[in-house]
Amino acid sequence: MCKLQWMHLAMLRQGQDTHSLAQVPVQAPSSTKLMPEPVTALCLPALRQLMPDLPADLEQLLGAVARASKRIADTLRTGDAHTKSGIENTFGDEQLHLDVVTNEIAFEELRACGLVHIASSEETPTEEDLGAPKAAPGEGFSVSFDPLDGSSIIDTNFSVGSIFGVWPGRGLLGRTGREQVSSILTVYGPRVTLVIALPQAAAGPRTVQLMLQHDSTWEMIHENLRVAPAGKIFAPGNLRATADNAAYKQLVDFWIAERYTLRYTGGLVPDVYHVLIKGKGVVTNVVSAAAKAKLRLLYEAAPIALVMECAGAASCTAPGPNGEHPEPISILDLPIMGLEFKCGVAYGGVEEVAIFTKLMYPGS
Amino acid sequence: MCKLQWMHLAMLRQGQDTHSLAQVPVQAPSSTKLMPEPVTALCLPALRQLMPDLPADLEQLLGAVARASKRIADTLRTGDAHTKSGIENTFGDEQLHLDVVTNEIAFEELRACGLVHIASSEETPTEEDLGAPKAAPGEGFSVSFDPLDGSSIIDTNFSVGSIFGVWPGRGLLGRTGREQVSSILTVYGPRVTLVIALPQAAAGPRTVQLMLQHDSTWEMIHENLRVAPAGKIFAPGNLRATADNAAYKQLVDFWIAERYTLRYTGGLVPDVYHVLIKGKGVVTNVVSAAAKAKLRLLYEAAPIALVMECAGAASCTAPGPNGEHPEPISILDLPIMGLEFKCGVAYGGVEEVAIFTKLMYPGS
Repeated sequence: MCKLQWMHLAMLRQGQDTHSLAQVPVQAPSSTKLMPEPVTALCLPALRQLMPDLPADLEQLLGAVARASKRIADTLRTGDAHTKSGIENTFGDEQLHLDVVTNEIAFEELRACGLVHIASSEETPTEEDLGAPKAAPGEGFSVSFDPLDGSSIIDTNFSVGSIFGVWPGRGLLGRTGREQVSSILTVYGPRVTLVIALPQAAAGPRTVQLMLQHDSTWEMIHENLRVAPAGKIFAPGNLRATADNAAYKQLVDFWIAERYTLRYTGGLVPDVYHVLIKGKGVVTNVVSAAAKAKLRLLYEAAPIALVMECAGAASCTAPGPNGEHPEPISILDLPIMGLEFKCGVAYGGVEEVAIFTKLMYPGS
Repeated sequence: MCKLQWMHLAMLRQGQDTHSLAQVPVQAPSSTKLMPEPVTALCLPALRQLMPDLPADLEQLLGAVARASKRIADTLRTGDAHTKSGIENTFGDEQLHLDVVTNEIAFEELRACGLVHIASSEETPTEEDLGAPKAAPGEGFSVSFDPLDGSSIIDTNFSVGSIFGVWPGRGLLGRTGREQVSSILTVYGPRVTLVIALPQAAAGPRTVQLMLQHDSTWEMIHENLRVAPAGKIFAPGNLRATADNAAYKQLVDFWIAERYTLRYTGGLVPDVYHVLIKGKGVVTNVVSAAAKAKLRLLYEAAPIALVMECAGAASCTAPGPNGEHPEPISILDLPIMGLEFKCGVAYGGVEEVAIFTKLMYPGS
């Protein structure tokens, strides 16, 4: 890297140029109607208290996700990470027993809430029609999910996560992440925590955090997580790509030389969550010809992008080795061209993602 | 780094030179006597089943550590990571509320077992005399511990750990890690797991793993964890030291260029545990003039070294910026010159630590 580049990056770090990422306004809320059946129990009273305007059907759906998360946490507590299920998923990954069980739990809860038209899991990437029997006409949701993100680090007892993306209406293909009405990350660690993106909250987009209590209720512990524009924490995913991606190598060298704090568990959910909770930093997953993209837009990249952007962070594509994503855009604006569509990503403070963009897209 | 060095390191990786680390035999077991009171309940039946020769008093002590770990896990589940206790420990670190609570739990259980003479915690680094009222004459233990290692990543819901080192008899100062009769790491993550070093097991030194079950018992899930000599996983602690430590910078560049897999949570216990469970890799914490040593030999470095060496891994000092540790030696052979004595470390597969030694101690 030449000295001029370093100076430019240093200026960026000091905030002199933070406008290179377009700020796209979040969509206006779609109209919501009352549920056809009375809501007899609030699943997440802490959320209702914070947001009296939360649509009842979305609250019901979030309750289903919270119940699934609780059950998955219980399953992980003693589940055997070493039992192979003997099933391969359709992408060819070997599935662990826990992947199968947690996948079934998520489907059960989404089906039971009666509000889901299409559900699609990273473990079984098809569009399952759940019928949404309790949805009012024209209402209901479609949900993508990864029930157990980070299964390679389950045996090492690292924190792992679940990811849920929630779209209004029926269908997932051809839509964008920006159309989501919510997305949820669950972190299974010493505690069980949920972060929920609420792009249509009356007071403006926000990301909240809840923690599972001993009595199985969820306590609100952060009402509005915010990620600062600049902050020296980095999580360099797919680091092997630096071997044949010179721009990524430069970026990693920059972070190390600038004495950024390294945190990289290898689990995308905990790594993103770290930035959310510390309120600063950047998480990347960059690709190269030899180290191909692994993140799926529908199941991972888009739901996470919503959580991050609702917390004031930015998201951005990474250019692919064969000309994919020639211009930097928000992950939320990438059309979901297929259930298995993959991409490289950056998430983080606006200035940190601007540094990423300057190095990874030198011509832009 | 010159080409010759690269070639040499490549040779090391291929195993042509793995004898640079002295293999010091583990001390012969000291004689053990029956407890003065009958053992009415086995605390860890899985351990007794595996090792009929386990001394009864050591089993009792391990039971106390297991009980403390269970209680700490319950406390972490919903404890507030953000409450400051208002107390500073004697090293000047700000203490979190959870540090205080977990410290008290560990002291309570060690006191209750009646077999501990001296207990010393990283949180309150003095030598507490617990009296060992149930120990037979000439028996009993002294225990060092860090009840909550990784408190900076509690709020981010990353896995964290506890560390316990167990010495026979009375007193900790002036001894070495090699004199320990056991050491224990607890990992609090999606599960609660214990790894226990048993240097005096009849069949030879070993490190075992147990997992906490829903009914509060501990199930044996690994009877003999082994770390392979070579394996491309790295956890580069104190990465900021690369800014003013050229040798460490070379080492990090080597790992990246050789496409090692990065895993670095920032918690020493989970990072070491990752190597133990994957059975390969290297964890380092290197120092420089600007990025000083943080690891305490008594509370962290020595107990972890025993767990690693009993699993067939190596441990090694890192040279200090002021001439500290001029020769590479096992962490287990460093005398504990003070409760707060600090050092840089490497833990990992024998060949991986040999690579570390060649670069960090170029003259040796």
